[in-house]
Amino acid sequence: MNTFGIALKVSTFGESHGRGIGCVIDGMPSGLFIDEQFISTEMQRRMPGRNTYATARKESDNVEILSGVFEGKSTGTPIALWIANENQRSKDYTQIAHTFRPSHADWTYYHKYGFRDYRGGGRSSARESAARVAAGAFAKLFLKEIGIVLQSGIFQIGALQTEQRDFNFAQTSDIYALDATQEPLFKQAIKDAKKQHDSIGGAAEIRAYNLPIGLGEPLYYKLDAALSSLLMGLNGVKAVEIGTGTKVAATLGSINNDEMTKDGFCSNNSGGILGGISNGDTLIIRAYFKPTPSIFKAQQTLNENYDEILCELKGRHDPCIAIRGSIVAESLVALVLADMALLNISSQMQTIKDFYQKQPYLFTKGD
Amino acid sequence: MNTFGIALKVSTFGESHGRGIGCVIDGMPSGLFIDEQFISTEMQRRMPGRNTYATARKESDNVEILSGVFEGKSTGTPIALWIANENQRSKDYTQIAHTFRPSHADWTYYHKYGFRDYRGGGRSSARESAARVAAGAFAKLFLKEIGIVLQSGIFQIGALQTEQRDFNFAQTSDIYALDATQEPLFKQAIKDAKKQHDSIGGAAEIRAYNLPIGLGEPLYYKLDAALSSLLMGLNGVKAVEIGTGTKVAATLGSINNDEMTKDGFCSNNSGGILGGISNGDTLIIRAYFKPTPSIFKAQQTLNENYDEILCELKGRHDPCIAIRGSIVAESLVALVLADMALLNISSQMQTIKDFYQKQPYLFTKGD
Amino acid sequence: MNTFGIALKVSTFGESHGRGIGCVIDGMPSGLFIDEQFISTEMQRRMPGRNTYATARKESDNVEILSGVFEGKSTGTPIALWIANENQRSKDYTQIAHTFRPSHADWTYYHKYGFRDYRGGGRSSARESAARVAAGAFAKLFLKEIGIVLQSGIFQIGALQTEQRDFNFAQTSDIYALDATQEPLFKQAIKDAKKQHDSIGGAAEIRAYNLPIGLGEPLYYKLDAALSSLLMGLNGVKAVEIGTGTKVAATLGSINNDEMTKDGFCSNNSGGILGGISNGDTLIIRAYFKPTPSIFKAQQTLNENYDEILCELKGRHDPCIAIRGSIVAESLVALVLADMALLNISSQMQTIKDFYQKQPYLFTKGD
Amino acid sequence: MNTFGIALKVSTFGESHGRGIGCVIDGMPSGLFIDEQFISTEMQRRMPGRNTYATARKESDNVEILSGVFEGKSTGTPIALWIANENQRSKDYTQIAHTFRPSHADWTYYHKYGFRDYRGGGRSSARESAARVAAGAFAKLFLKEIGIVLQSGIFQIGALQTEQRDFNFAQTSDIYALDATQEPLFKQAIKDAKKQHDSIGGAAEIRAYNLPIGLGEPLYYKLDAALSSLLMGLNGVKAVEIGTGTKVAATLGSINNDEMTKDGFCSNNSGGILGGISNGDTLIIRAYFKPTPSIFKAQQTLNENYDEILCELKGRHDPCIAIRGSIVAESLVALVLADMALLNISSQMQTIKDFYQKQPYLFTKGD
Repeated sequence: MNTFGIALKVSTFGESHGRGIGCVIDGMPSGLFIDEQFISTEMQRRMPGRNTYATARKESDNVEILSGVFEGKSTGTPIALWIANENQRSKDYTQIAHTFRPSHADWTYYHKYGFRDYRGGGRSSARESAARVAAGAFAKLFLKEIGIVLQSGIFQIGALQTEQRDFNFAQTSDIYALDATQEPLFKQAIKDAKKQHDSIGGAAEIRAYNLPIGLGEPLYYKLDAALSSLLMGLNGVKAVEIGTGTKVAATLGSINNDEMTKDGFCSNNSGGILGGISNGDTLIIRAYFKPTPSIFKAQQTLNENYDEILCELKGRHDPCIAIRGSIVAESLVALVLADMALLNISSQMQTIKDFYQKQPYLFTKGD
Repeated sequence: MNTFGIALKVSTFGESHGRGIGCVIDGMPSGLFIDEQFISTEMQRRMPGRNTYATARKESDNVEILSGVFEGKSTGTPIALWIANENQRSKDYTQIAHTFRPSHADWTYYHKYGFRDYRGGGRSSARESAARVAAGAFAKLFLKEIGIVLQSGIFQIGALQTEQRDFNFAQTSDIYALDATQEPLFKQAIKDAKKQHDSIGGAAEIRAYNLPIGLGEPLYYKLDAALSSLLMGLNGVKAVEIGTGTKVAATLGSINNDEMTKDGFCSNNSGGILGGISNGDTLIIRAYFKPTPSIFKAQQTLNENYDEILCELKGRHDPCIAIRGSIVAESLVALVLADMALLNISSQMQTIKDFYQKQPYLFTKGD
Repeated sequence: MNTFGIALKVSTFGESHGRGIGCVIDGMPSGLFIDEQFISTEMQRRMPGRNTYATARKESDNVEILSGVFEGKSTGTPIALWIANENQRSKDYTQIAHTFRPSHADWTYYHKYGFRDYRGGGRSSARESAARVAAGAFAKLFLKEIGIVLQSGIFQIGALQTEQRDFNFAQTSDIYALDATQEPLFKQAIKDAKKQHDSIGGAAEIRAYNLPIGLGEPLYYKLDAALSSLLMGLNGVKAVEIGTGTKVAATLGSINNDEMTKDGFCSNNSGGILGGISNGDTLIIRAYFKPTPSIFKAQQTLNENYDEILCELKGRHDPCIAIRGSIVAESLVALVLADMALLNISSQMQTIKDFYQKQPYLFTKGD
Repeated sequence: MNTFGIALKVSTFGESHGRGIGCVIDGMPSGLFIDEQFISTEMQRRMPGRNTYATARKESDNVEILSGVFEGKSTGTPIALWIANENQRSKDYTQIAHTFRPSHADWTYYHKYGFRDYRGGGRSSARESAARVAAGAFAKLFLKEIGIVLQSGIFQIGALQTEQRDFNFAQTSDIYALDATQEPLFKQAIKDAKKQHDSIGGAAEIRAYNLPIGLGEPLYYKLDAALSSLLMGLNGVKAVEIGTGTKVAATLGSINNDEMTKDGFCSNNSGGILGGISNGDTLIIRAYFKPTPSIFKAQQTLNENYDEILCELKGRHDPCIAIRGSIVAESLVALVLADMALLNISSQMQTIKDFYQKQPYLFTKGD
C-alpha cells in the first residue's frame, strides 16, 4: 500500500517527525548514469524553508543513496534513498496532541489505526513527498535517456487564474508561476492569506514532451488512470484534469475531436492520451490543490473524547501547498512515465524475438 | 494490467465484436448471498439499445455465472462471469478498417500493438464496461451487507448544468438526470447533437452513504487515488473531482475546512475523504465525460499509410457516453469501496487477535 | 490469489463439478501465432479417461478461446479460455457430503470458508489443472519463438526408480515413463495399487533446453523460487528439487561446484540455475507426488459434527496423480519461463534506449 | 521483484560490500508491541563471525528502526530497518574481479545486468539475509500474539543424518544441531571440510506449532507454495520438502493418508498442510543447502573474456551455509505465516459484517 508502479516500483517510508524519510526504487535497469548533482537540484525545488511562500521548517533534504548504485551507475538492484529529518519541532504539536485539526488526516488516521502520531501528522504529512521527489529525479534521468522531458508550473492561486503557460519563466519563479505578469499578484494573494493566519488554494499544470506513442497499459493501468491515481493521492489535491479537462463535458464531438493531418494533430484536447495510451502529442495534466488545512485561525473541532473545542494551531505550515506540491506532482508524472516506458517494450512479440536472437553466448554442456 | 483491486480483484476480458465480454472476481468472501435478479437489474441500467439516448446496438446483456457461486452463495473461490455478444455488426467497420477515427483509441492501439482489431474498437470499446457493471453488482451486494449504499446521476449535458441533486429522480430518468426540471432540456441537447450527426459531453456525480471511518490505504492506495484511477480510466473521462473539486483552488483554508461539532461535520468540502481515508461523511465524486469521438460528420484524419483522408463513419454509437458511463462509474465506486472495506479490517492488531482467539477447534496430534 | 505470474499473468477459475474450468492469460505480447491444434494436443496429454492409468471420468477437454485472439494471432489483450465440464457425476459424492476424506483438502476448505462444495472437491480438485495445461500450451508457443523447448517424464512409481532419462520414449509412453525397460514394472505397480483399492505415489522430472542466460528476477522472484512455488502448489506435490536436489546436502563444494571450460559447464549439479537466474545450462527440476488421497479402502475419519466414522469412498479417481500431474508440472514450468523471458528484457538500460530510438513516427503538433 | 508477501510485504535492499542492508515491512497492523531486545537476539542467531562454523567476517548487525514504530508500538505505517555494514574488506575480491567463481551467481548476474559488482557478490551475497532475519523477528512478535511458535534445527551435515528432532537442544547448539549425540560429528565434518579448503552441505527442518486451520490462499498463494518459493529462493537451497517429502512418491495412499479420530490426526505425513491450507497440525518443512560455492581450492573456470583460468579464491566464507541459513529459513517461514494469518481473516462474509457492526461512531452531517 506504500508502493506504486509495476515495472518500476517505488516504496516510501518515514514520518514527518521521526528520524527521516526514505524510499526504495525497484526495477531500474542497470547501467543508468546517476547524476547526484541533478538529484540535489531537484530536491531544492521542493525544499521547505526556501522562501517566504513555503513553510519555515528548514531541512537540507540531502539524499543519501544507501544501495543500488555502484561506480556512478545503477546496478539493476533496489535503489534505497534516505533523507534525514533535521528540523522537527515536535513540541509545536503538544497542545493539539488530542485535538483533531479540521479537514486534516488526524481524524481519519486516528480512527483507522486506533492510534495517533501527534508529532506533525506522522505519515500523513507532506514531508513524505520529499521521497517522491528524490525518486522522481531518478525517473527523470531515465526519461532523459529516451528523450522525454517534463515541465510544470502554477496557473492559479486562489481566485486568480492565467491562460499563460510560460514554463521557462516558471522554472525561475519563486512560486513556479506560469505567467510573469501575474506572478506578483499570485505572490500577494499568498502573502495576504498568510497575514490573515489563513491559507490559500492553487493549481498546477504538468506537461511531458516528446512521448513515444504507446505508453499506457489498458485497461486498468492506463496512462491517464495511473497519473490520476498518483496526483489525486497527493496531499490536498481534490481534482485532476487531462487535456481540456472538465470542459469536455460542455462541448460537441466535432469540436472536441483532434483531427489529424500529415503534420500532426490539429489540436490537443485529448492532452496526449487516447484510450489510456500516449498518442504522440504533448501530455497535459492539471492538479487542483486545496488550501492547507493547518491554519492559525481558531476553528470549531472535536478532541479524542469527542468534546467540542476550539482548534488554535501553532507551528510552521505552507500557506499554499500548491507551490511545492507542483514539484511533487511533476516528479510523480515522471515516475509514471518511466514505469510505462518499461512496460511498453514487451507489447509486441517481435521485440521479444529480436532481443533473444541477439543474446550472444549460449552455453550448455553440463547436462 | 487488465486487473484492478487488491483484496477484491476484478480482471476483465473480451472485445466488442468478439464472442463476448467477461470478468473474474477474486477475493469475495464466502457466504455472500448472490441475488441474480439484482445483477440483472443493474445490467439493464447500462444496457445498450435501451432508449433513444443510447446506441442502437441491442444486447440482452445476460450475465452467466461460470464459477464461484454454489447454492446461491459465494464460495470464496473466483467468481467468473460471462456476457455473450449478440448483436455485433462488424461490417459497419469494414470501410474504416484502415482509417484512424479522430480522438479514438484506434490510433494508439494500432501503434502500441502493431495490429488492428478493426471490428468496433476491439478491447478499447465501451462494450467492455458491461463486465464492470456485472462485477459492480456483486460489490453492491457486498456493501449492502455492511450498510453502504450508492447513488449516481447526471448533472451536466453539454453547456447545461444543474446544482440539483435529486438522486431519486435520477433512478427513474431515461438519462439519469439529477434534476426533473432540467431533464427535458438535457434530452433535447442530446437529440440535437444526434440530429447533427454529432455527439455531446456530460458529467456525472456518484455518492456513497453510510461509509465507516477508515476506508482507504495510505499512501499509495488511498481511497481518492483508487477512485480516481478507475474513473479517469473509464472511456471518455477527462476530469475527476472529489468534494468541492476544482473550486478548492479558488478558496481559503478557513472557508474550505470542514469544521466539526458533536453533531458532525459542518460542511463536506472534503467529499468524505481526508488523507485518502473515508472520514465518515458522504463520499462525493464527479466524472466529466467527453463527447463520443465516433461521430457521423466528416473529419480530417489519416489512414494506416499516413495518407490524409476524410473519416466518414457509419455504425451505431451513443450520442452521449456520460449517460451509460455514469452507471459504470457508480459500479467502479462500489468495487473500490468493497476492496477498501476488506483491506481495512486488518488495520489494527486487536482485530487479528480477536479473530484467532475465536477459532474453535485447535487440533494437533499427528506430529 | 488465483493468479500467478508478473509480466505474463494467469488467473484460473472454475470447479470440478460446476459448469467448467477456465483461465485468463494477461500480458501475452501481440503477434504470437496461435496454433489451436497444438493446444488440443497438449490437452490430450493431461486428459482424464485416456487410459487405465487415469481416472475413468471422460472429458473431451475442448478449449474454447473466448477472447484475445484475432485472425489467428494474439492481440495483446487478455486471452480467456474455457473448458466445459461434461462428465461430472455429483451423486458419487452424496454419501460423503458431510465426511472429511483423510488427507484431502475437504477438511481445510471447510474450516477456512465455513462451507463445503461437496461435489468432487470443488475448487481443490485436480480438474482445475486443465486450465493450467491450456495456459501452458500458449506459453510453449511463446517459448518456441525464442528457441526454448521443454520435456518431462516419470522416473519413479512407488518404490521403483530409474536413473534413465529417455524423454523421447516418455512422450509415447502411456504413463510418460522415462525408461522403456522399467515402464512395464511401473505400470504393474499402478495396476496393483488400483486392484487393492489403493493409490500410489510417483515423481516427475521436467527439463528445459536452450535457455538464455538471465532468466529469473532476484531476490524474490528468482527462477528457482517461482518454479518451486508453482510445483509445490500443485495438488499432491510434497517435495521439489533442482539439479542435484536433496543430495547437495551430502556433498562437498569441490564436488558439487560446476567448473567451466570454453566448451561449457563440466557438470550440471546446479540444474541450470545460479543465484536464482538461468545460467545457460539445461534446467532440471523434479516434483514428488503423494498417492491420491481419495482411495476406496475404508479409513478412519470425522464428519462435520466431528463424529468418528469410516470413510468409504466411491467415485472415479486417478490411481497415481503423478502421471497426469507431470504434464501439468511441465505446463507450469513453461509459464514461469515465459514470464521470466518477458521480465528479463528490461534488465539493461541499453535495451530500453535501443527500443525507443527505433520508434518510427514521433508526431506532435496539437499543442 | 525485491518484495514478497501480500498483506504483509517485505522489500529488501542493500549489498554485501555497500553501506549496509535494509528492508521495509509494509502491512503490519498498528498496535503491535515491538520488543527490540527480541529483535537483537534473533539477529545474533544469524550473525557472522559468531563462532568457528561461520564466516570470519565480523558484523554487529545492529538493527536501526527508521520508521513505523512510535512509543514502542507499530503504527500501521511502513517499518523500515537498517543494518550498516561494518567489516567489508572489498580488497579480498580484487583478484577475482574479472573471474567467475564456479557455481556462483557472479556468472548469471554479470550476463543479466551487463555489469559486475565484484565486491563480495553485491546483492547476491548471503549478507542480504540479515534483513530477512530482522523482518522475521517482527513476524515472530506478531505470531506470538496469536499463539504461533516456531522452531528450527540442522538434521544433516554432509553424509551424516539424524532422525532425532531435539529442537530445544538445537537452540543452544553452536551449529543448531537437532541431535546432541550427533552434534560433535557434525562439527567435525565441518571442520574437516574447512581444513581441506572445501565446504560442506547440510539440511534444516523448520516447524511451526499451534497453527489455526485455514492459513493459505488457494490456488496460487497456497501455504506450501509460498513457503517453497521463499525457501528455494534462499541462497544455496536446492530442495524443499513438506511433511514426508520426497518419500511420498514411494508409498501408497492407505499408508500416506493421515487418518483422523476425535483426538486428532493419527499421523502427520502431510506436514500440516492439505490443499495448500494449514490443517491444524504441526507445520513441518525442510530445506537442503548445497556446500558454499566459494571454496579455497583451485578450480577450473572462465574470466570475463571467456578465457580458461584457475579460480584461486581468498576471503572469508561460511564453510557450511546450512547453519546460518537455517535461521534465515525459520525467519522466512514466520513471515509467510504472518502474511497468511492476515489474509485469512477476510475469508468469510460473517467476519466482515461483524467487524463493521462494531464500528462505534458513524458520523455524517456535512452533506
